[in-house]
Amino acid sequence: MSKETAKHIEAVRQQMRSVGVDAVIIPGTDPHQSEYISDYWKVRDWVSGFTGSNGTAVITLNEAALWTDSRYFLQAAEQLEGSGMVMHRENGPNPDTKEEWLADVLADVEDAVIGIDGRLFSARQVNELEQFCFSNGFRLATDFAPADRVWTDRPARPAGKAMVHDIKYAGETVESKLERIEACIEIQQADAMLVAALDCIAWALNLRGTDVAFTPVVTSFLYISEPETVLFIDPDKVTDEVARHLKASGVKVKDYDDVEKYLSKISQSVSVLIDPDEVNDRLASLIASKTYAKNPIALLKGVKNEVEIEGFRRAMERDGAALVRTFMWVEEMAPTGTITETDVARRAIEERRKEDLYTDESFGMIAGYAAHGAIVHYEPEDATAATLQADGLLLVDTGGQYLDGTTDITRTISLGNPTEAQRHHYTLVLKGHLALGNAVFPEHTRGVQLDVLARQFLWKEHLTYFHGTGHGVGHYLSVHEGPQSIRTQENPVELVPGMITSNEPGLYITDQYGVRIENCVLTVNAGENADFGGFMKFEDLTLFPYDLTLIDKTMLTSLEVDQINAYHRMVRERLASHLNAEELAWLEAKTAEL
Amino acid sequence: MSKETAKHIEAVRQQMRSVGVDAVIIPGTDPHQSEYISDYWKVRDWVSGFTGSNGTAVITLNEAALWTDSRYFLQAAEQLEGSGMVMHRENGPNPDTKEEWLADVLADVEDAVIGIDGRLFSARQVNELEQFCFSNGFRLATDFAPADRVWTDRPARPAGKAMVHDIKYAGETVESKLERIEACIEIQQADAMLVAALDCIAWALNLRGTDVAFTPVVTSFLYISEPETVLFIDPDKVTDEVARHLKASGVKVKDYDDVEKYLSKISQSVSVLIDPDEVNDRLASLIASKTYAKNPIALLKGVKNEVEIEGFRRAMERDGAALVRTFMWVEEMAPTGTITETDVARRAIEERRKEDLYTDESFGMIAGYAAHGAIVHYEPEDATAATLQADGLLLVDTGGQYLDGTTDITRTISLGNPTEAQRHHYTLVLKGHLALGNAVFPEHTRGVQLDVLARQFLWKEHLTYFHGTGHGVGHYLSVHEGPQSIRTQENPVELVPGMITSNEPGLYITDQYGVRIENCVLTVNAGENADFGGFMKFEDLTLFPYDLTLIDKTMLTSLEVDQINAYHRMVRERLASHLNAEELAWLEAKTAEL
Repeated sequence: MSKETAKHIEAVRQQMRSVGVDAVIIPGTDPHQSEYISDYWKVRDWVSGFTGSNGTAVITLNEAALWTDSRYFLQAAEQLEGSGMVMHRENGPNPDTKEEWLADVLADVEDAVIGIDGRLFSARQVNELEQFCFSNGFRLATDFAPADRVWTDRPARPAGKAMVHDIKYAGETVESKLERIEACIEIQQADAMLVAALDCIAWALNLRGTDVAFTPVVTSFLYISEPETVLFIDPDKVTDEVARHLKASGVKVKDYDDVEKYLSKISQSVSVLIDPDEVNDRLASLIASKTYAKNPIALLKGVKNEVEIEGFRRAMERDGAALVRTFMWVEEMAPTGTITETDVARRAIEERRKEDLYTDESFGMIAGYAAHGAIVHYEPEDATAATLQADGLLLVDTGGQYLDGTTDITRTISLGNPTEAQRHHYTLVLKGHLALGNAVFPEHTRGVQLDVLARQFLWKEHLTYFHGTGHGVGHYLSVHEGPQSIRTQENPVELVPGMITSNEPGLYITDQYGVRIENCVLTVNAGENADFGGFMKFEDLTLFPYDLTLIDKTMLTSLEVDQINAYHRMVRERLASHLNAEELAWLEAKTAEL
Repeated sequence: MSKETAKHIEAVRQQMRSVGVDAVIIPGTDPHQSEYISDYWKVRDWVSGFTGSNGTAVITLNEAALWTDSRYFLQAAEQLEGSGMVMHRENGPNPDTKEEWLADVLADVEDAVIGIDGRLFSARQVNELEQFCFSNGFRLATDFAPADRVWTDRPARPAGKAMVHDIKYAGETVESKLERIEACIEIQQADAMLVAALDCIAWALNLRGTDVAFTPVVTSFLYISEPETVLFIDPDKVTDEVARHLKASGVKVKDYDDVEKYLSKISQSVSVLIDPDEVNDRLASLIASKTYAKNPIALLKGVKNEVEIEGFRRAMERDGAALVRTFMWVEEMAPTGTITETDVARRAIEERRKEDLYTDESFGMIAGYAAHGAIVHYEPEDATAATLQADGLLLVDTGGQYLDGTTDITRTISLGNPTEAQRHHYTLVLKGHLALGNAVFPEHTRGVQLDVLARQFLWKEHLTYFHGTGHGVGHYLSVHEGPQSIRTQENPVELVPGMITSNEPGLYITDQYGVRIENCVLTVNAGENADFGGFMKFEDLTLFPYDLTLIDKTMLTSLEVDQINAYHRMVRERLASHLNAEELAWLEAKTAEL
């Protein structure tokens, strides 16, 4: 890999020299600021050899560097070896920044030019880069895309077909959604909106696709306005069914590559709403009159309708049944010392495939055995996967995409002989998970206000976890979506009925094991008090038992015992009809009264 | 009152006509944006007859209106009667705003001019008013101060002497404080700072005064810079001792009225840091070169030093002893039906006066019996005070100023025969108070993250309270200070060791009773974990028992019972040496093991 990488870097440098660029920044995203991207856009992977989900390469005429976060320090160090590219740490102790490094490296270059591909940076990112360049005397060129010329064996753009997401799953017509979006555009006193976020386009048009891994979106841009709504999409992706669906919904279709021309022709008198964090700078710069605002679709999409909610409930039942079979197999096989972490991941896919409406994983499974469980975003690979044994903790974070809903669950199980410390730590995490899951809270509550409920028991013992407690979950869309969150950082978005959020506290004991317990929860109305207003609570959507062998009952209040028993009763009742006799017997033992 | 008020309004209108002003806005503050103000600055009271702590009068040539909040709806309605001034609601259902009202009332006036006294508005407020005027085609005149001409029997400016706050209470020299402030000024890349907040000046210079009620500050402005630090103060206030103290600390003294001339002569090359929420617009507008930033003294002052903390602990003991005697008397007298809410307030002052280092109340006592307890900011007055009886709840929120510390405590007691509902509600509030008081939390935690701990038990029953849970407390200074807070709103200030904050959840049952329980708590280090960082907790400073007759033990966990018993043991031990045998016997009964 590293020799090839060195060649790619040199090819980029030739382009830099030919147009007078002194440094190029190559991020790991696509023109839609996607979390998962198609191979066509993996320019950063091509130039660096590094394949992690977060990393930015910076290349000057003499130096090359890559920034990534602590999840990938080991992987990046390995993948960069021999390429001449040096790894820098985005977080962890003594982080350094690309900007500091660039200011330093380019200090002696006269009239230095930094080149970027404006399609791969949001309007806000370019604005910040411009300020950085201005204060350092550099010039920013936003049309430098060397890969377009020198990446000879570049993969094709994904050619998968778009698919109509049936109204029986979506629960709301495109007309109705567009009407609500247009009302939001009007509130912002804009005349139109350009949508770049692929999951927002998919939601708005009841369309799905197969262009990227895990998230069933289709590459496109969407322009919404009263006079016309236009979907920019590769014509090959538009099946007859999709064409009919869009036409019936009043949506015009144009070629994906026509979006730039179209935007540049919009009259100055039409103010186009764009979200500066989502729309790329190239497109933003073509629009004559802009209104910057948060993309309002995020909130509309985040509040699920009754059909979507009912779909989630059904998908969770099938997902729970598939996991019963998966974990039964893990329990049977682990003591034999013949299966690895990746075998667990493969087995879960096999079991889910047997279920109705399943299409794909919603993200790559995290299956972390023993010390691997303490690596927060660990994804096993065959070459390095640990072999399970008859004891130790196994942390499994996994999810499925079903036409009627998306799942995301984490369970930590003991493969045998749990230690006192393991049971103590598991129970601390579980107490936080229960406290959050059973919270009641008034209208206008934000996630930051509830986060402590999940952490309080850990904090009492001077323990904590360094990730958020909850993220939004899409409906047969991205498993990580906004706009709400439950975390220590302020987020002004209030929790409202219909939002689906994860509840996933954890604890990671370096070199020993990790514990995380995650359910998806639905915000529902809890009741109205004449003097004190409306209150809300959470409904657990996820259906799979906690590990009774890891619960230290002496640490629980009687209320917590009741909560666990009630949850386990629900899991049993809801999964029963999906299981055979043997599976049900296993589940009954796993959900025995505490 | 109302007839006089009508005359005052007319006098103001004559001034308006003579200089061509169409509307005047008169707020209830002083040139230092103080919470409590001297009689000289009570222009709003003079022109409206309204004496509440929050209210703004707006007068046009034909109309007059006053905005206040729900605490004062009744009082304002009474005090405004017959004046022709109409009350508007700042909050509550269907609030309306001054701005909307002005836009409406002045809509037909050509080139309308709004007049204000720029000394009574912060720089930020004037900036916002200017934007309002601009978008409505009005002009803002910031030098309209009609009271200066037509308020004939205006009280004199307060003539009390400044006093040196002894280093044995303050714990840090002025030199040291100024050095730390100058470092903060440098961090903001400014050359100087103008301080207008009276408590910040008092803290920085180890000075106190008697100019306003409850907060021992002295009217002044402070200019801090490397070349010279100048206190602007009425020369009559400067005793020989104060003069020596300031000189020894390197602080020059100039006349209070010279501040405008001084500021207007500062060179353009000197950038003066001002807090736009604290410095009034008149002064801000005189400064040629400004750096806007939060006043850094708020944080320096908020983190108490060891001497201040030890002073707080000692003051709390004396305060607790005075309250033991006060509540003994209340218990004895209430069944006789001969004492009122104001008698309780007077008795507390008498008892506190017997204690060393006591100087004043830190705010007007809230003593709310039965239904009065449900009015959150109720302050009893003789004419309307309720007479205590042999049953019902009494809510007492009170505090004292001692040279070595400031106290703020709320206790709710049953005067006899507590009902099930009273005990249930009291115990819910107490559980929240205990959960917050016993919290452990990592470094970098903000108050908003902890707020739910105090509310969670109320929320479960669809109850809540509509005020903050905690505010900072000054050291022999303002009983309400920043920069930290514990409330539902985001405040980026992190809790750090040395901060003193109130912990005061409540519950208000309209027309029946109020429950609030408040201790002051000190943030202290709890320990360091190599993997998870530093953790903090609270130390209870306030020393007075909860009401055992109002605690429903069946609602408590064993941990909560232990927490109450441990707190009561500490109260007994710390107060014992301050009490005679009879008082101690009373306290022992009140703190009996639960």
